[in-house]
Amino acid sequence: MRSKDRLTLDVEVLSALLDGTRAESRAAGRAFAGGDGLLLEDSWTLEEKREATRESLQKLVETGIARTPLPERLGGENQHDQHITMFEEIVTVSPSLQIKAGVQIGLFAGAIQHLGNEEQHDAWLLDAIEGRLLGSFAMTEIGHGSDVAAVATTAEYDPETQEFVINTPFRAAYKEYIGNAACHAQAAVVFARLITAGVDHGVHALFVPVRDESGNPLPGISIEDDGYKGGLPGVDNGRFAFDHVRVPRTNLLDRYGSVSEDGEYSSPIESPGRRFFTMLGTLVQGRVSLVGASNTAAKLAADIAVRYARARRQFQSPDAAEESTLLSYRRHQRRLMPKLAQIWANQAAYERLLDQFDAVFSGRDDTEEARAELETLAAGLKATTTWEALDIIQEAREACGGAGFMAENRLVGLRHDLDVYATFEGDNTVLLQLVGKRLLTDYASEMRDLDVGGIARYVGSYAAERTLFRSGIANVSSTIGDLFTPAMNEKRIRSGRLQEALLASRAEVTLTELAANLRPANKMSSTDAAELFNDHQNDLIETARAFIELHKWRALNDLMHSVDPKDNPAEAKFLRRIRDLYGLELISAHAGWHIANGRLSMNRARQIEPTINRLVRKLAANAGDAVAAFGYGPEHRRCPIADGAEEQRQQETRDYYAELKRSGNMPQDEKDIYRRKQQREAQLKEKSAER
Amino acid sequence: MRSKDRLTLDVEVLSALLDGTRAESRAAGRAFAGGDGLLLEDSWTLEEKREATRESLQKLVETGIARTPLPERLGGENQHDQHITMFEEIVTVSPSLQIKAGVQIGLFAGAIQHLGNEEQHDAWLLDAIEGRLLGSFAMTEIGHGSDVAAVATTAEYDPETQEFVINTPFRAAYKEYIGNAACHAQAAVVFARLITAGVDHGVHALFVPVRDESGNPLPGISIEDDGYKGGLPGVDNGRFAFDHVRVPRTNLLDRYGSVSEDGEYSSPIESPGRRFFTMLGTLVQGRVSLVGASNTAAKLAADIAVRYARARRQFQSPDAAEESTLLSYRRHQRRLMPKLAQIWANQAAYERLLDQFDAVFSGRDDTEEARAELETLAAGLKATTTWEALDIIQEAREACGGAGFMAENRLVGLRHDLDVYATFEGDNTVLLQLVGKRLLTDYASEMRDLDVGGIARYVGSYAAERTLFRSGIANVSSTIGDLFTPAMNEKRIRSGRLQEALLASRAEVTLTELAANLRPANKMSSTDAAELFNDHQNDLIETARAFIELHKWRALNDLMHSVDPKDNPAEAKFLRRIRDLYGLELISAHAGWHIANGRLSMNRARQIEPTINRLVRKLAANAGDAVAAFGYGPEHRRCPIADGAEEQRQQETRDYYAELKRSGNMPQDEKDIYRRKQQREAQLKEKSAER
Repeated sequence: MRSKDRLTLDVEVLSALLDGTRAESRAAGRAFAGGDGLLLEDSWTLEEKREATRESLQKLVETGIARTPLPERLGGENQHDQHITMFEEIVTVSPSLQIKAGVQIGLFAGAIQHLGNEEQHDAWLLDAIEGRLLGSFAMTEIGHGSDVAAVATTAEYDPETQEFVINTPFRAAYKEYIGNAACHAQAAVVFARLITAGVDHGVHALFVPVRDESGNPLPGISIEDDGYKGGLPGVDNGRFAFDHVRVPRTNLLDRYGSVSEDGEYSSPIESPGRRFFTMLGTLVQGRVSLVGASNTAAKLAADIAVRYARARRQFQSPDAAEESTLLSYRRHQRRLMPKLAQIWANQAAYERLLDQFDAVFSGRDDTEEARAELETLAAGLKATTTWEALDIIQEAREACGGAGFMAENRLVGLRHDLDVYATFEGDNTVLLQLVGKRLLTDYASEMRDLDVGGIARYVGSYAAERTLFRSGIANVSSTIGDLFTPAMNEKRIRSGRLQEALLASRAEVTLTELAANLRPANKMSSTDAAELFNDHQNDLIETARAFIELHKWRALNDLMHSVDPKDNPAEAKFLRRIRDLYGLELISAHAGWHIANGRLSMNRARQIEPTINRLVRKLAANAGDAVAAFGYGPEHRRCPIADGAEEQRQQETRDYYAELKRSGNMPQDEKDIYRRKQQREAQLKEKSAER
Repeated sequence: MRSKDRLTLDVEVLSALLDGTRAESRAAGRAFAGGDGLLLEDSWTLEEKREATRESLQKLVETGIARTPLPERLGGENQHDQHITMFEEIVTVSPSLQIKAGVQIGLFAGAIQHLGNEEQHDAWLLDAIEGRLLGSFAMTEIGHGSDVAAVATTAEYDPETQEFVINTPFRAAYKEYIGNAACHAQAAVVFARLITAGVDHGVHALFVPVRDESGNPLPGISIEDDGYKGGLPGVDNGRFAFDHVRVPRTNLLDRYGSVSEDGEYSSPIESPGRRFFTMLGTLVQGRVSLVGASNTAAKLAADIAVRYARARRQFQSPDAAEESTLLSYRRHQRRLMPKLAQIWANQAAYERLLDQFDAVFSGRDDTEEARAELETLAAGLKATTTWEALDIIQEAREACGGAGFMAENRLVGLRHDLDVYATFEGDNTVLLQLVGKRLLTDYASEMRDLDVGGIARYVGSYAAERTLFRSGIANVSSTIGDLFTPAMNEKRIRSGRLQEALLASRAEVTLTELAANLRPANKMSSTDAAELFNDHQNDLIETARAFIELHKWRALNDLMHSVDPKDNPAEAKFLRRIRDLYGLELISAHAGWHIANGRLSMNRARQIEPTINRLVRKLAANAGDAVAAFGYGPEHRRCPIADGAEEQRQQETRDYYAELKRSGNMPQDEKDIYRRKQQREAQLKEKSAER
């Protein structure tokens, strides 16, 4: 490392940038997560891990933090983002607890709050929020996973008794992977097709008690245990089946659909499709919270790997007094520094998402357009951030070598637990497709270029129900023309305007090409149109990714510009390095596209690699500050190799050899003897040649 | 899927191509792996898993397969590749067993065989091979991981008693992550610095008993348990420390260095550096076997994911009678088909590696050049194949959604167990660096362009000790000039010659540029030269990767050409699709480089994406055959979702709805009512407009 690379940074300034307006609730979360008795011991049985997680959940709700999103009437603050940021910190000690809390508070209580009426709130909400009533969120079925519209469980109204009859008609309709189901749930919010008077009104949610006071399943309810999983051992996932289970009519969570005593259905939203997606939209919190939790896990892993890389020494360089630290190797810098940049970009985008989330749910900015944008961004950020977190944790684990594989150093456990984040709360591929379809619908309506009704046929009803983005993602086409000018090609590759122009240009062009390629579908048979659409499914997903990447870059760029270089010159410079590394890595990944489409000259393209190479070297000089800014201490890392074990061993080694030298007992090295002998022989040869 | 994509393939022809000349031992391995009592149950404790693995190891050695590599004198066949291919199949049922067997047979017995003399063979080898003497391979130390030259344990000769005194001077010198150490090893081959008559002769291996008959550590030996890891729960890894432990002089495995009774050291290899690397070279089998085992695990995972994707149906397409299978989605094809191509390429390269391995170790072709090439290829293939296996298993797990996260479907367990393959037996990054250094040294000596002595200073002694590749990897520069001609740019992108020219050209140019960039080092101070080298460390590794990718492509290409299109037209076509997909994915990953360096026209570059898109669609039509060719049955997959569970549930669902329709009890769909209402209203509007 070169001394001039190193900036003198104020870690608190960096922390304030990362934690933003929610610094206080994050600090509360970290204080909780750093406490005793929360870590699951590897030696415990599955049952012990589940029981310990249940107990920790009680401790967590006792903090009262889960009450903040409640309406004022119930003692809450109608404040929807702070408790999420508190909860996400829990991932640092136990992803199982974070998810179990997410099931209980975000999903179970959240569904009661957002889909239920005031009487239902009075009956169940406080008990759920305060952990006296443990519950499940029984939406997913074996047969259809992320395709919720295809739920097959039925809730048929019986006017005779004014009850709903919940039924599981076949094995594929079992509620599956349901958190809290295997052991702890006393009740569940069950999603089922509401049938009354011979009409199927689509998926609705009902409150269904599932266990009696002694913990046994209620009559007609079968519960199976999912048993061992790839991670999250503290969460008791399981399956529910219902054999004509009856609940009172008033157990229907009826915000978007109710049934009168005599069986007449009514809803504030006439279109069944729109009603379904509006209902689903109220449950976006789960996806929002996974963005934050997965970036938090990524921070912890990067923190561990960077601390180890700064301490660990390997492979003596010639003539050096000491071996080099791992972090001084360029390849190691290339492995870890781009991950730090991703973490910063994800955090910047996440903070915006939280702002939008709170604005919508508090009612400050609750329009249909705002909800559509929130849902789309939540889907796109959930998909990309959870995947990146898995990559970051894996890179951190490998960067710690064999020590990274030891359970005591935390990284493998984090990796196992986070694995499922990529496929639950909406499979990542399905979510990116959703983003792509929204972009396409919006493009169609904005450009008046495609028949919107026509496009609806193959983008599916969800996207078609929600058009008209108001800003951000879709309206890029209006700005790119300005951004990309011939003069742009003269800019240095570290120019922010050039980076934005390249990223925006790719997003726009891929979307435009996609729309053009799909245009013939309007005149095709359904089968041919479906095949054409399938031919371009990959482009659809890559287009979605390009937009989300652009969105993240812009969030990071804005965060960078929020630092005044006059007040904080070093921090501004650091953030510029982070932003440039993030931008150039994205551009490099699609360099072929940028060149082949005439956006990037070959000359400029060749600058990218050496620029990245320099940026990682410079950032590595401040890697310690960069991870310190995440705000974790040894009580969070709980990882010997990150906090002193390695330094201590090295000191012991140095002391041993110093003493050996001092004592005169150091053996001679055969290599030195051999080298001297070779030199002597060479001299003799030379001499004999001279003679 | 389109019917014309589907080829009528003979699966046995494909299997024969994959299993090659070692089909018989692979079949034996599969028969063993498909047996009962080998799978570790998730509910078992760590102790139970370790004990079960020990018992399974006994069953395995009882097959007698481990004897084949022994010399004829000891009842063996001097046959070195067959038992490896038998062992690698075991990864399908228990990676723990595969690794424990690798430790016992490949490393412990292997070190005795390759580093010991005939008396030592007589004393320990048969007992080790037949599992009566369980042992460890105690090389790695906490402080230095993959940097074996830095081992700090000492073995000092005491002529008084004619014994070696083994000692662990400090904590960083503990032998760490040692398989069999925590519970089962009775002895260990310990790597230590041999010191006699005040001279340190570098790292040598000694046979050291570690436990008494009742399983307690012998005096002076401390054993610690590594406990819980990220996977491989059946392997009892642990740590050894030695407090002045004495073993007889004759326990030194003395093939490359011996000590006389009065303490005089002698060796058949004068240079200490060359001696060390020659000794290490005899242990290459570990890396070779990991190539095969990781590709085998990748096959099993891909098999499961493809079978599930062919059965599972999701998201109804408009007007379709039935939902589509996952495998009919283009994105799903894009996720899985390139993985199948990688598996084929890795298998083709692995078969060659085995041929070379057996030729060297049987003595049929045991030259220094052959060994150097074998070691370099083993390093490069181990690094890339283990990483690709992790990606393949992860993609398979995510492609199975929530079901992929359930332990009963095997994928998460495979992923956990294989994780450490990336960092043990030589860290993958270190191994790729080794390949890069070899390429550079060879380039220097061949081009007479760089001072070989000068380059040695910064590529390290290992590479400098072994120059002169005889073929393959390094001599590419002589052939590329012929391959890449202007006419090449007229070829179709599926031309094999074009693919080879692009891959070879990138390998050559990156190597040439790297050498040119490093040239100034010869005139620099050591510190500056080291810094220059570090600045290009990433290029070095990327160059190594480019050569290994080219090598794999060529192996796959040769395998493809081994199929006579006259005898097997469909199979030849299938293999061409596989090869083209493999080649185009590699070219696409570095498209920016190929265009920016003038090798690929922009026009042609734009063909790559649609060609890949078509290839995955075509290959998906035969995906079932492609995985059937791997040769596994339900007894290997042991995975409900891959073998019928999904189909059964779908049939049950279809039957239910058919019966419901037949009975006349099917409720009306509100969506249909709503649509008809909208149509009626539209008609009324139209009519009123007409009036």
